[in-house]
Amino acid sequence: MSLARPHVVVVGAGFGGLRTAHRLENAPVDVTLIDRNNYHLFQPLLYQVATAGLSPDDIAHPVRSILRSQKNLEFRLAEVTGVDLDQRQVHTRTGSLPYDYLVLAIGGQTNTFGIESVAENAFGLKGLEDAVGIRNHILRLFEKAAIEPDAQKRRALLTFAIAGGGPTGVECAGAISELIRMVLVKDYPHLNMHEARVVLIEAARQILPALPLNLSSEAAEVLKRKKVEVRFGAAVSSFDGQVITFNDGSSLPAHTLIWAAGVRAAALADALGLPQAGLGRLVVQPTLQVEAHPEVFVIGDAAHLPGPDGRPLPMVAPVAMQQADQAVANIRAALEGQPAKPFAYKDPGALATIGRNAAVASLGKWQFKGFIAWFLWLVVHIVQLVGFRDRLIVVINWAWDYLFYDRAIRLIDPQRSCDT
Amino acid sequence: MSLARPHVVVVGAGFGGLRTAHRLENAPVDVTLIDRNNYHLFQPLLYQVATAGLSPDDIAHPVRSILRSQKNLEFRLAEVTGVDLDQRQVHTRTGSLPYDYLVLAIGGQTNTFGIESVAENAFGLKGLEDAVGIRNHILRLFEKAAIEPDAQKRRALLTFAIAGGGPTGVECAGAISELIRMVLVKDYPHLNMHEARVVLIEAARQILPALPLNLSSEAAEVLKRKKVEVRFGAAVSSFDGQVITFNDGSSLPAHTLIWAAGVRAAALADALGLPQAGLGRLVVQPTLQVEAHPEVFVIGDAAHLPGPDGRPLPMVAPVAMQQADQAVANIRAALEGQPAKPFAYKDPGALATIGRNAAVASLGKWQFKGFIAWFLWLVVHIVQLVGFRDRLIVVINWAWDYLFYDRAIRLIDPQRSCDT
Repeated sequence: MSLARPHVVVVGAGFGGLRTAHRLENAPVDVTLIDRNNYHLFQPLLYQVATAGLSPDDIAHPVRSILRSQKNLEFRLAEVTGVDLDQRQVHTRTGSLPYDYLVLAIGGQTNTFGIESVAENAFGLKGLEDAVGIRNHILRLFEKAAIEPDAQKRRALLTFAIAGGGPTGVECAGAISELIRMVLVKDYPHLNMHEARVVLIEAARQILPALPLNLSSEAAEVLKRKKVEVRFGAAVSSFDGQVITFNDGSSLPAHTLIWAAGVRAAALADALGLPQAGLGRLVVQPTLQVEAHPEVFVIGDAAHLPGPDGRPLPMVAPVAMQQADQAVANIRAALEGQPAKPFAYKDPGALATIGRNAAVASLGKWQFKGFIAWFLWLVVHIVQLVGFRDRLIVVINWAWDYLFYDRAIRLIDPQRSCDT
Repeated sequence: MSLARPHVVVVGAGFGGLRTAHRLENAPVDVTLIDRNNYHLFQPLLYQVATAGLSPDDIAHPVRSILRSQKNLEFRLAEVTGVDLDQRQVHTRTGSLPYDYLVLAIGGQTNTFGIESVAENAFGLKGLEDAVGIRNHILRLFEKAAIEPDAQKRRALLTFAIAGGGPTGVECAGAISELIRMVLVKDYPHLNMHEARVVLIEAARQILPALPLNLSSEAAEVLKRKKVEVRFGAAVSSFDGQVITFNDGSSLPAHTLIWAAGVRAAALADALGLPQAGLGRLVVQPTLQVEAHPEVFVIGDAAHLPGPDGRPLPMVAPVAMQQADQAVANIRAALEGQPAKPFAYKDPGALATIGRNAAVASLGKWQFKGFIAWFLWLVVHIVQLVGFRDRLIVVINWAWDYLFYDRAIRLIDPQRSCDT
């Protein structure tokens, strides 16, 4: 690694950051990729870890092993605390790094819109620790319910609420309901599973708003068939860990609230002194550059850029990955003294699964539902997983669960079960 | 479940407890199996979780799913706090259970022989949390070493000491050395791996004392070829987290000490008011009954019973499993008014692996070493794993690692990496 080459620092090893680092492989630069975890997380399958279908190891892959063959890359495990934009230095808890170009791919985090009781007592679903926490919590509640003589208390222990009718909320609700009706019903023969409820809470009148209305209605129907109660037009105002209170004053006794109702840019975005727009996202030029600092690029969830319809681009993996390509192209252009080009998003469509044999997909002019959409969903996700071994083990876990109505990973993690 | 049937409470879902509960399936009793975890742990492969070869889920299987089909069994997730021997009640943190017969299969725990600094700063290797803790710790130290400019500090970060030359210590030392020399060497191309050391500390003059001397010498030779330094006649007197001090006053700068040098009966044994012998083990009659309480049986690591040579039986799975069978036979005999029979141990031999293609085995008159012993070890362990899915995934993980010199599970667990 020559010190004379320009140094590109990429912050974040999610879909956008990982792709940026990788695409710079043959560029005349040295690359440092920083993340606070040593792995790349395949977030779309996080809800399967939360519902005991997959192991954390199946969807998280060490960054060093993914990028092992890339000669111009160094990985740094560190938490970024700030950026000195004038001195061109990234500050971390374990020292500072100078940069010539900076790509901020810092991602998003759960957004409870200032509802503190929800922030304190509900689960988010953005990181591995969230997912493992949810898995432990659900299984522990079933153990508690198994020895709880009071029916009313049992019902509160076994009511699982999910706020937010986007893909994460829908997939999570469907998976929890199947976990209960197909797997745990066999583990707890003395529990009356009619006491268990899964409630999906959606503030609007429609779930999966990215999909055409007919598919979204179909998804709501399938959820009902899978015994998920869908509450439209309901907004959570507070949650104390035992009772959810809604804006209309009504309430629901429940020991679990999974918050999939909002995402915002990662907190680091607030610490940079750069212009922010809605959801804390950093305002970028169409070229993905920060206006006052053209050597700084922001991509993915943390970037605020309006799409063709004037609304900000969604916080989804395809946006981050396409923006990674554009950021790399623009860094290469800058190195060659060429002007940067604007980013144009090509929407690949939307896909959401509701559980066994059921999914909805809208890909351009094509619409799919039922088994075909579900199979499409499987294939798309298996292909995108990093590494052949991960793919193989995920396929085996899924096939096993599918054939035997089982969930393999029903462990309550010892360090997190202290209150038993 | 009829209340009129005698109630057998089994404490502990390790090898002994799980087998006891299962073997009571057709006995005219109701069984409650209690464990503080919701899974049965396949302890012989724990060191593979510690060294990133297997996922925790591969060697831990939910108790409810193992014993799902057993009609006369209830599982209770609870920590046992004590036993009222006169009232015949088992006390747990979530209530008490009456029993007619009690089988204490409470297992063992790490024994640091009163060396407090070791208890505080070294890792044990008895539970999943130990193994995951070691994995996180090793990987984090490599990340720290990667940005440490001082060679002396780097060497201390990369010195991994294991105390205890029994099978656990030997297997762990071999696996850490292979993790470093075959896998991490590719992850950290800028680190000089000659700075990394694996040191196996044994107080006696021989490792693997359960094996014939020629096999034990062979094992020491293989360890050396795998670049493990074996220190004979060395006893640890203290460890502050950065330096190991020995009884002879010498010291070794190392940030890791894995303590495989001692096991004792689980702490619960001290809380029962029953006679204890060496290592806190509960004294039992040859029938495995407690003298003053013939309705109480103790089996496995926590039971003190001399073998044919007059020495207490070892704390190994075959003893626990054979004792489970005897305890069940004696409970059945008691139900039928027959006398209890004494336990006789049939030693199946000893087997230890030192890593890739290398193991030693002594089975009756037969001795094996090298690839054949290693293959035997693989087969024995895969066959004993609970559940076909676990076996399949373990085989895939092992085959993958074997073919590609890889370790799949190199994740640093987020909740445990707070100090990065």
